[in-house]
Amino acid sequence: MSDAVEPRIFRGLRDYLPDQMRLRNRLIDTVRGVYESYGFLPLGTPAVEYLEVLLGPGGHEANEQIFRVRNPDRPKAETTAGEEAERLGLRFDLTVPLARVISQHPNDLALPFRRYQVASVWRADKPDRGRYREFTQFDIDAVGVESELADAEIIAAMCDTMTALDAGGLGGFKVRFSSRKILNLLLAYAGVPAKLAVRRGDAVEMRPGADVFRVLDKLPKIGLEKVRLELTRGYTDESGDKVPGLGLEPAQVQRIEAFLNVRSDTRLGTIGQLRELFAGVENAEAELARVKTISDTLAAQGYDESRAIIDLSIARGLAYYTGPVFETTLDELPQFGSVMSGGRYDDLIRRFKGVSVPAVGTSIGIDRLLAALVEGKKVKLKGATAQVLVTTMDASLQGEYLALATQLRRAGVRTEIYLGSARVGKQMKYADALGIPLVLLVGSDEQARGVVQIKQMDLGLQLSASMATREEYRQARPGQFEVARGKIVESVKDLLAGLGA
Amino acid sequence: MSDAVEPRIFRGLRDYLPDQMRLRNRLIDTVRGVYESYGFLPLGTPAVEYLEVLLGPGGHEANEQIFRVRNPDRPKAETTAGEEAERLGLRFDLTVPLARVISQHPNDLALPFRRYQVASVWRADKPDRGRYREFTQFDIDAVGVESELADAEIIAAMCDTMTALDAGGLGGFKVRFSSRKILNLLLAYAGVPAKLAVRRGDAVEMRPGADVFRVLDKLPKIGLEKVRLELTRGYTDESGDKVPGLGLEPAQVQRIEAFLNVRSDTRLGTIGQLRELFAGVENAEAELARVKTISDTLAAQGYDESRAIIDLSIARGLAYYTGPVFETTLDELPQFGSVMSGGRYDDLIRRFKGVSVPAVGTSIGIDRLLAALVEGKKVKLKGATAQVLVTTMDASLQGEYLALATQLRRAGVRTEIYLGSARVGKQMKYADALGIPLVLLVGSDEQARGVVQIKQMDLGLQLSASMATREEYRQARPGQFEVARGKIVESVKDLLAGLGA
Repeated sequence: MSDAVEPRIFRGLRDYLPDQMRLRNRLIDTVRGVYESYGFLPLGTPAVEYLEVLLGPGGHEANEQIFRVRNPDRPKAETTAGEEAERLGLRFDLTVPLARVISQHPNDLALPFRRYQVASVWRADKPDRGRYREFTQFDIDAVGVESELADAEIIAAMCDTMTALDAGGLGGFKVRFSSRKILNLLLAYAGVPAKLAVRRGDAVEMRPGADVFRVLDKLPKIGLEKVRLELTRGYTDESGDKVPGLGLEPAQVQRIEAFLNVRSDTRLGTIGQLRELFAGVENAEAELARVKTISDTLAAQGYDESRAIIDLSIARGLAYYTGPVFETTLDELPQFGSVMSGGRYDDLIRRFKGVSVPAVGTSIGIDRLLAALVEGKKVKLKGATAQVLVTTMDASLQGEYLALATQLRRAGVRTEIYLGSARVGKQMKYADALGIPLVLLVGSDEQARGVVQIKQMDLGLQLSASMATREEYRQARPGQFEVARGKIVESVKDLLAGLGA
Repeated sequence: MSDAVEPRIFRGLRDYLPDQMRLRNRLIDTVRGVYESYGFLPLGTPAVEYLEVLLGPGGHEANEQIFRVRNPDRPKAETTAGEEAERLGLRFDLTVPLARVISQHPNDLALPFRRYQVASVWRADKPDRGRYREFTQFDIDAVGVESELADAEIIAAMCDTMTALDAGGLGGFKVRFSSRKILNLLLAYAGVPAKLAVRRGDAVEMRPGADVFRVLDKLPKIGLEKVRLELTRGYTDESGDKVPGLGLEPAQVQRIEAFLNVRSDTRLGTIGQLRELFAGVENAEAELARVKTISDTLAAQGYDESRAIIDLSIARGLAYYTGPVFETTLDELPQFGSVMSGGRYDDLIRRFKGVSVPAVGTSIGIDRLLAALVEGKKVKLKGATAQVLVTTMDASLQGEYLALATQLRRAGVRTEIYLGSARVGKQMKYADALGIPLVLLVGSDEQARGVVQIKQMDLGLQLSASMATREEYRQARPGQFEVARGKIVESVKDLLAGLGA
């Protein structure tokens, strides 16, 4: 054995201790239940992928954030240019691996292919509160379907998922959707060219027209006046740095502002306003009709504005989306941002195949949701796996303790037997620390009389670890019942049902 | 978008397509159910750990097999000697991370700490049939307990897990246990010193006495005669290579052979023979008493030799075990080796803390078990998530299709709505390919009459993708029923109950 190693964890990573892990498993089981109710099929892919599979579709930032893995067969691939194709990395999402699977197994997967996947992804960005470098995503996607029915199904499944999670105390949510195509209409309407010549000091840099959205994204942070300046001639910020302008004309900015003012309480109201605004813009009718079909399909299933709304402010930052885009916010915890996002990405799979397979999906950030639940104090964290602890206070009765535990387990009661050799008071404290609701006690006296003592832990006994003997413990035993040994399963089940545990 | 990328996967890795993934999830859910019935608590740890946490305890081979990950904050750590402490790797098991967690969170975990963890691990060894470089382990461990009760509980949980999995058609199993300590008794009994001087040509190499077990492990492969030679003076193998001998005396080999001949149908019989053999060897009584206590505890709970046996041939290759060791073989698929192994490792956590916290646990290789089920043809792989497919043959009835699907889902029936725009025959083929047992059909006629057609897929209709219309399909419709729209949930549930789906 080597010298003592410091037990530490890499920056941006975390352990899930049992309380949080239980909650995390419950979240995942809930989501899985909803997705299976829709008939989505499970898929598994490895964490390690070829780097060339991962690089590209997520954009420059995603590329930078990929954790690199040394190829054990070609250790020099990391440094030798000729070995580039042998480089490896950890996946940064579940969408790119899905695209690879679709292309790699064309004969094993029937299209439409509707799959769910829940797995870890890794991104080496700056760790921050509630932002980790390894986190779990739960994705659904429908591949090979162009129809708005698929877009609407994803939104419906998002609503059902959030409703199911809401039962766990999230306190309301909104699924927000829009479309990349609407943003393209805006560029056309405002006459923003495909390329913008942006002056930076003496140099001129060519930027895509979609840079407009990068600026609009700053609206909540910097306010309308600075957004106007950045869209036109630029400005100098408080620290004296020059923020270059995109060089738009005032008339163009006016049209963009008219778009920012589109607002309605109903989805149809929003679509109506957009129709007016974009009247005469090429493709506007067709694109807005697609959005209306999604809205109508949702309405036909009862998903009204209390759950799914059109929000034109989303959809700006995402790289590979081509049509509808989705986000989800928590009514009472808006600071956590979107906990479930997605969209249509009809071009991603073409990277591999040379043909376009349309696809649409959504992804839940399980860890962000968990952080919201915990920090928003929306859940009670404590909760044991076991429903019953069988204490072991008399070594000569070990056979009886084992028999009790086995009998309860066979009857479907999650039962732990205390494995240490502590005094009874300490065993009770252990049950209390873990949140185990019922504790069984059998001493030689109970054994002789054919009974078992059951202690219901929530009935407020101040426990003391110094209580060395069964007798001392008995003198202070509120919430303690004596039941016949033959009725133990029945009694425990009755008590648990009463506790809702 | 970049040029077309070849969709490929790194050597030794695999995708789990839906059929296999469903089965895998079912295995994991089954195991989790058993472990939760024992009150084990869930734990989660990151895949990426500091290399110095991982290096060492698994032995030289494990060290070599660790996938190295480039530290995104200190990219030079990989090559610079001074940055050694900043190197990263992927975990190769779940035991070493558990040991780190125990040491790192001393105040957040009540001892005894009994946890389960199911997660991927990575080992860069030579890929082979059924051996992958990324695979899933499902571990339980009890930390902070010295008592044989904990060893017996792990074995009991192993038996219960295998029994639960056996219900899925594994065809019988044996949990085999022994103890490292028995092997130490053998070394004492045979007078094997702590260090052996092994001659290799002209050089003399010092090897640990435990090298005896490395040689005994070869017994099934090379036979008793060659094992005798390798324990004594060595031999030259068929290809002319010299196999050095350990230099034991014939009398020592005789004692080792006497141990190899210990054999009994009962656990107590085996212990009795060992007592005779090791009579007078220091510590023999105490160590064998511990093994007997484990056996007695199992017997008290009804785990007899049909499920748990003593097998003295196991426990030789494992590095960090200090006491009892466990393996599990499948009666009808012995070629898969041990699918569930573990043991007591009282020294592992000391690496971090400087104090010894005793621990015992076991690990299931989920992927090996899955391979056994699939290759042993013990399972039917096909099986959809959805129980019902709602076909969409008339675009004007989309609202009705959605309403049907939503109604069934709310009633707990897993329902998929066909998202593509294919002809009805192709939609039926899709249901058939996925193994969806029931298909619903509604056309304008059914809509007008207030009925739904239900097609039970296992009733043998040869489907043709060329059947373009509902009428053509109807003319050949065995297993098709018409039910009132108002009774659809009831009818579907009845049919599913009849199908056991």
